[in-house]
Amino acid sequence: MIAKGQTKTRDRILEGALALFNEKGTGAVTTNHIAAAIGISPGNLYYHFRNREDIVRGIFALMEAESREGFGPIAAGAPSMGLEAFEETFRFIQLFNRRFRFFKRELPTLLMRDRELKEGFQAVHRETLGLIRALIDGAVAGGALRPLEEGEQQLLAEMSWMLTLFWPNYLEVAGDGDTDEGLERGIAMIRLLVRGFAAGR
Amino acid sequence: MIAKGQTKTRDRILEGALALFNEKGTGAVTTNHIAAAIGISPGNLYYHFRNREDIVRGIFALMEAESREGFGPIAAGAPSMGLEAFEETFRFIQLFNRRFRFFKRELPTLLMRDRELKEGFQAVHRETLGLIRALIDGAVAGGALRPLEEGEQQLLAEMSWMLTLFWPNYLEVAGDGDTDEGLERGIAMIRLLVRGFAAGR
Repeated sequence: MIAKGQTKTRDRILEGALALFNEKGTGAVTTNHIAAAIGISPGNLYYHFRNREDIVRGIFALMEAESREGFGPIAAGAPSMGLEAFEETFRFIQLFNRRFRFFKRELPTLLMRDRELKEGFQAVHRETLGLIRALIDGAVAGGALRPLEEGEQQLLAEMSWMLTLFWPNYLEVAGDGDTDEGLERGIAMIRLLVRGFAAGR
Repeated sequence: MIAKGQTKTRDRILEGALALFNEKGTGAVTTNHIAAAIGISPGNLYYHFRNREDIVRGIFALMEAESREGFGPIAAGAPSMGLEAFEETFRFIQLFNRRFRFFKRELPTLLMRDRELKEGFQAVHRETLGLIRALIDGAVAGGALRPLEEGEQQLLAEMSWMLTLFWPNYLEVAGDGDTDEGLERGIAMIRLLVRGFAAGR
């Protein structure tokens, strides 16, 4: 949480909206709710954001910035990392997902409604899939994973990325919620997947 | 498509709503849109359904009925089926998902909004996860999959179910849409997963 005085109104709107979206879903939250929650007038909110869609885009920009910061070191080390890098990547993304819970929860609908957001997310998608593919290629080259057939390294990357992307949604619809136990179960799942393709079995 | 004269108004409302929900998402479709799309009065629609939520529940009941019909033979054969049963189950669920596209797309939000729907889905979740677990236990017992450690058969079942559940969402957010190529890529993914745990590697 960021103290009121230290931050600009724009940031307070984004954080207030994020908390409400996470709790209730974007469909149940109006710009008036957001303004009331952080104690500003609707007019002041409209000075910063045209509408709710605009606020969602603002949160996405925040996600991109925070993700770049956290992912930088992982991406830089990818080619030479071992199997534990998969678990670390998964853990990092799940903690990130927890902060921006509504985004993955509503992802297909959000992208369907907003072409600009869709293009922005798909750039992130390609970048993250590329990073996971680099982790896999590095693990095969280093002998930690066994060699796979043509196309299978890409499929394994997609499978890992998809599990990472939708794990919080799976926990939610299964009724297990967003708990530390759920996070650890997801990590055990990724570990099992990686072990299935580990060399020397 | 069902011809107009052959079916009851209630069924026409459900099929009309399903088409609109799939195309636009539930948030962008009102009961008035649905009534207009099938050429009945709003009053006639309200005679059958109280509101949009009630229509979503009606579609879910339809899903349950169609799923039971399609899944019956798979469930009955589960204990003795080979590895190709995983691909068949995946294929069946993806074709089912295509017909009821909006439901998986909006799943976490739909369940968050409606406790009755949540309980209904979670019963389906437990049942399907149990079926996939039975497929895996059968494949291990029959020697097609190698024995796994304590808890890993359940994790593998969850991983398979999660991939099956969210594959159409993954294709959609990746920008690949709901195509036959996407379906085949999903089947290749499940095949790769199963091969990772096949006996004799």
